[in-house]
Amino acid sequence: MKSFTGETKKPGVRDPDICVVTCAVTGVLANRRQNPGIPYTPAEIADECKRAYDAGASVVHIHARNDDGGPTFSPAVFARIKEEVRARCPIILNFSTGTILDDVTDQCTYVRESKPEIAALNMGTMNYAKYSPKRKQFDFDMVFPNTYSKIIKLLEVMNEVGVKPELECFDTGHTNGIAPLLDMGVLRPPLQFSFIMNVLGGIPGHVESLQLQTKIMPAGSEWEVIGISHGAWRMIAAALVLGGNIRCGLEDHLYLPNGEMATSNGPLVETAVRLVRDVGRRPATVEEAREILSLGAPR
Amino acid sequence: MKSFTGETKKPGVRDPDICVVTCAVTGVLANRRQNPGIPYTPAEIADECKRAYDAGASVVHIHARNDDGGPTFSPAVFARIKEEVRARCPIILNFSTGTILDDVTDQCTYVRESKPEIAALNMGTMNYAKYSPKRKQFDFDMVFPNTYSKIIKLLEVMNEVGVKPELECFDTGHTNGIAPLLDMGVLRPPLQFSFIMNVLGGIPGHVESLQLQTKIMPAGSEWEVIGISHGAWRMIAAALVLGGNIRCGLEDHLYLPNGEMATSNGPLVETAVRLVRDVGRRPATVEEAREILSLGAPR
Amino acid sequence: MKSFTGETKKPGVRDPDICVVTCAVTGVLANRRQNPGIPYTPAEIADECKRAYDAGASVVHIHARNDDGGPTFSPAVFARIKEEVRARCPIILNFSTGTILDDVTDQCTYVRESKPEIAALNMGTMNYAKYSPKRKQFDFDMVFPNTYSKIIKLLEVMNEVGVKPELECFDTGHTNGIAPLLDMGVLRPPLQFSFIMNVLGGIPGHVESLQLQTKIMPAGSEWEVIGISHGAWRMIAAALVLGGNIRCGLEDHLYLPNGEMATSNGPLVETAVRLVRDVGRRPATVEEAREILSLGAPR
Amino acid sequence: MKSFTGETKKPGVRDPDICVVTCAVTGVLANRRQNPGIPYTPAEIADECKRAYDAGASVVHIHARNDDGGPTFSPAVFARIKEEVRARCPIILNFSTGTILDDVTDQCTYVRESKPEIAALNMGTMNYAKYSPKRKQFDFDMVFPNTYSKIIKLLEVMNEVGVKPELECFDTGHTNGIAPLLDMGVLRPPLQFSFIMNVLGGIPGHVESLQLQTKIMPAGSEWEVIGISHGAWRMIAAALVLGGNIRCGLEDHLYLPNGEMATSNGPLVETAVRLVRDVGRRPATVEEAREILSLGAPR
Ligand SMILES: [Zn+2]
Ligand SMILES: [Zn+2]
Ligand SMILES: [Zn+2]
Ligand SMILES: [Zn+2]
Repeated sequence: MKSFTGETKKPGVRDPDICVVTCAVTGVLANRRQNPGIPYTPAEIADECKRAYDAGASVVHIHARNDDGGPTFSPAVFARIKEEVRARCPIILNFSTGTILDDVTDQCTYVRESKPEIAALNMGTMNYAKYSPKRKQFDFDMVFPNTYSKIIKLLEVMNEVGVKPELECFDTGHTNGIAPLLDMGVLRPPLQFSFIMNVLGGIPGHVESLQLQTKIMPAGSEWEVIGISHGAWRMIAAALVLGGNIRCGLEDHLYLPNGEMATSNGPLVETAVRLVRDVGRRPATVEEAREILSLGAPR
Repeated sequence: MKSFTGETKKPGVRDPDICVVTCAVTGVLANRRQNPGIPYTPAEIADECKRAYDAGASVVHIHARNDDGGPTFSPAVFARIKEEVRARCPIILNFSTGTILDDVTDQCTYVRESKPEIAALNMGTMNYAKYSPKRKQFDFDMVFPNTYSKIIKLLEVMNEVGVKPELECFDTGHTNGIAPLLDMGVLRPPLQFSFIMNVLGGIPGHVESLQLQTKIMPAGSEWEVIGISHGAWRMIAAALVLGGNIRCGLEDHLYLPNGEMATSNGPLVETAVRLVRDVGRRPATVEEAREILSLGAPR
Repeated sequence: MKSFTGETKKPGVRDPDICVVTCAVTGVLANRRQNPGIPYTPAEIADECKRAYDAGASVVHIHARNDDGGPTFSPAVFARIKEEVRARCPIILNFSTGTILDDVTDQCTYVRESKPEIAALNMGTMNYAKYSPKRKQFDFDMVFPNTYSKIIKLLEVMNEVGVKPELECFDTGHTNGIAPLLDMGVLRPPLQFSFIMNVLGGIPGHVESLQLQTKIMPAGSEWEVIGISHGAWRMIAAALVLGGNIRCGLEDHLYLPNGEMATSNGPLVETAVRLVRDVGRRPATVEEAREILSLGAPR
Repeated sequence: MKSFTGETKKPGVRDPDICVVTCAVTGVLANRRQNPGIPYTPAEIADECKRAYDAGASVVHIHARNDDGGPTFSPAVFARIKEEVRARCPIILNFSTGTILDDVTDQCTYVRESKPEIAALNMGTMNYAKYSPKRKQFDFDMVFPNTYSKIIKLLEVMNEVGVKPELECFDTGHTNGIAPLLDMGVLRPPLQFSFIMNVLGGIPGHVESLQLQTKIMPAGSEWEVIGISHGAWRMIAAALVLGGNIRCGLEDHLYLPNGEMATSNGPLVETAVRLVRDVGRRPATVEEAREILSLGAPR
């Protein structure tokens, strides 16, 4: 049988046609003034996870928020989110661990306590800035530090409780920089990468960016694209063509391909899944995603 | 305003979001035993052109057939096809001129007489063979010759009657081989290329194949992908991502992305147009396609 | 120990630093009016092979000529060339089998009788033309046919007598077109490719051309670049950087990098070998080349 | 006349054959225990600049050191270095401005006072770490911060005194991150880039890395490669093939291509220049480099 690339499928090899679709339901940067559909509370977040699940996603990537929409790293809130999601659907949980601080105590705690199947892990340091073309100046201009010692702290907790790290790489040096972690044994194959495109200070949204990132990563790794802001749908299609998994959701881009604002994560996932099918692939079920991402049994 | 690549659109520059969708409605290789939807007669072909038009195509690429499905190069049949299509819709006509013979008298005649807006022109020589993996031998094994003198004969007629050549390139040497024709003045920019992928003896269906072909072609040229057989939908998505135009249709691939056989060209074009929209682009109207392809006024 | 790429060398894997340098000593297109150093007779050819050997080449690619410089496919002349070369040095012999005719009887005979270690084999059909920019017309305009049946005839003889085919690919379709031959078993890994760059009708001399050709070939194959005419030294350097073997010689390009005409193959090979060393690699000895190219013991 | 790529040279366009060779004579990381040839004092540094000049370099990149080899940012030392170099040869001066601190007061002072023709400018933030495979732990693990405000401070001084910034990019996000600076007008074309390869935390040394970096930079920019550590010669050859300028020197890599330690910068530049010539290019004179890099008249 032919795969979507036209080549004959090989038994015993990961089926290239299957695509793990992740939905990043909320993030922390955008708020309801920008898009009224953005969920804040655990129940709202869980409702969005259910919409993503119903539309064909098998993983949800989650940041926690206070009820007013501000970011929180409270382990209790993460626990509550897990509970609310689990009450609605068996979708795989991926919790963010990103923080601009060096201190990752809270992150370690909620990873250890909530044990999401996956925890996203920022793999390198970069500028974190926002420029206003209108005012010709920067709105903010900071460093987003992710030293090896910070990364190792998080990896050790993940290893301890059996949470799979998703290696979030904003540039090629983040991907290439895993070598010492592999050598130390704190990072263990098979690996799972997220290639974030189009963040100021990070790799730009070119097809060649994905080609270089996937060339650098160890052969046999799973990878997905995260296309931020405008150009997101093009990057999703590029990843589909190149054989990757994909991520969509209100954290990444607020708009549907036709330029209309998405009212919830549901239509975003529906569009992504339609793209998956229209290039000749199909979305992974939760069970298939568990196997593809080496996550073990549900818990 | 942002284009589908995330970059700001520039006034006066061809809108990168607009995609010319061509439908190759019949070809000459497949027959009704393989797919009952393949049109043979001028009326059947024209009905299929109308279905393609209704689904969002702005160009149809046409081979003529006898009523039993065999190929014909009869100028009268091409004239009849034009008449039947024109009676149904204003879609742009692209007539094949491909022949395994050196003699292109008939082709010159129907280009001169029917004056389709576009005529497809094979730009190089290659092997033309079909291998049977089952029987471990070749079904046929021939040369598909397209010498410069054959190409020049056809170009001179197209120049004479104002028919736009679509440069069909099966490999990089075909694209690169236009240099003498440009130098002689028999080929004149702006150029329009078709990059055919995945024919035995020609360039294989990789994203990198499209990247190299578009690097070789003169800057500012229009180009489309033609993905043959399995892998066709992936190649269409790749071209969409890379900013190209696309072609689909029963000549190129008989199946929808889910593996079901297409009952007509309509569903193939519908799928292609949905892909166009889902990456953040939109299909060209006939009027837009005329302008993008530099075809002049309808005739 | 680090290889020239900066990566650690792996035991049991072909040493990436070693580069097989081939010299194409004469060809058949250029003559002594163009370059007085071009050898014609078997003794002259063998003298050039010795100069190439002394300068660091481990393989010589040879066409036979009559004493007036015209091409010959006479088995007796090839036998004589072998004898003359063997009297001078143990360099590996690679005999051309290229012919614009379909009939390969002579080629089969001299491969069978002389049993060179390697025989070069053209892997596809293309236009074979020469354009004169001055006269704005073609000097000649032909088809260079290499159908599968012609290729198979030559391969069967090579298999019969244990001569290694060097797969000469002028474009990506030639490289990709080996699939049926592998499936039939007439072509057997490990394979050895030559990627010819910059012939009109073939792939142009871009770095990306080499990258695509090496992507298409089966993993684990050996490959060399053949850069024709101007741009040849750049293509040689590109192949060195990408890990390939290289070919130089009066057949491919008559000039040294500074634009001066080479007086013999010696200075061409000296320059190539200096490039090999200056990128951190080293030229293969004859013994190493035998092993790398899987040629077996001398005969 | 043909360029080294085989294409015809165009009048009025920067001659692609000319390559600006820069020598980074000392750096600050390596010391005389590692290589006795590393210069410390202004006179020693100037002697090395003269050796680089004599060997064919047209630019020297300089860090200042105390007499014991430790780093210094003393404006007086930079002034002294300039004086010593100018007493020996007219080579173009490129002063480093790199510092792990946020405070760039000293850097601004010596740029303003010494007015080197060029000042190197780090264009982004990244991890700065060194891993010991032997001890399976990090020797150090820090952030190398280069926020926009730090970059802008340095750019403003360079603009004020007419010093050309050389944009040192360790990853693609550094190259892509110039957009706000161009929009603010603090960075002004034509631009000059250095693409540093193979630093932990930065882009790895692949040919594709250079291809992506040069795709991202604004068209018409000048660029050079800086290949750090093993793999350096391969990266230099890659840049030569891709049309870039090159840098070598004891700051970047202590070894000649054959693995021997270089006794001074002279043999490193000699090797680089030989590579330049052997791919068919030639090293820029100081005057040509001034014009290519838009540096204006000597001062
Ligand atoms: Zn997130
Ligand atoms: Zn056709
Ligand atoms: Zn030859
Ligand atoms: Zn430096």
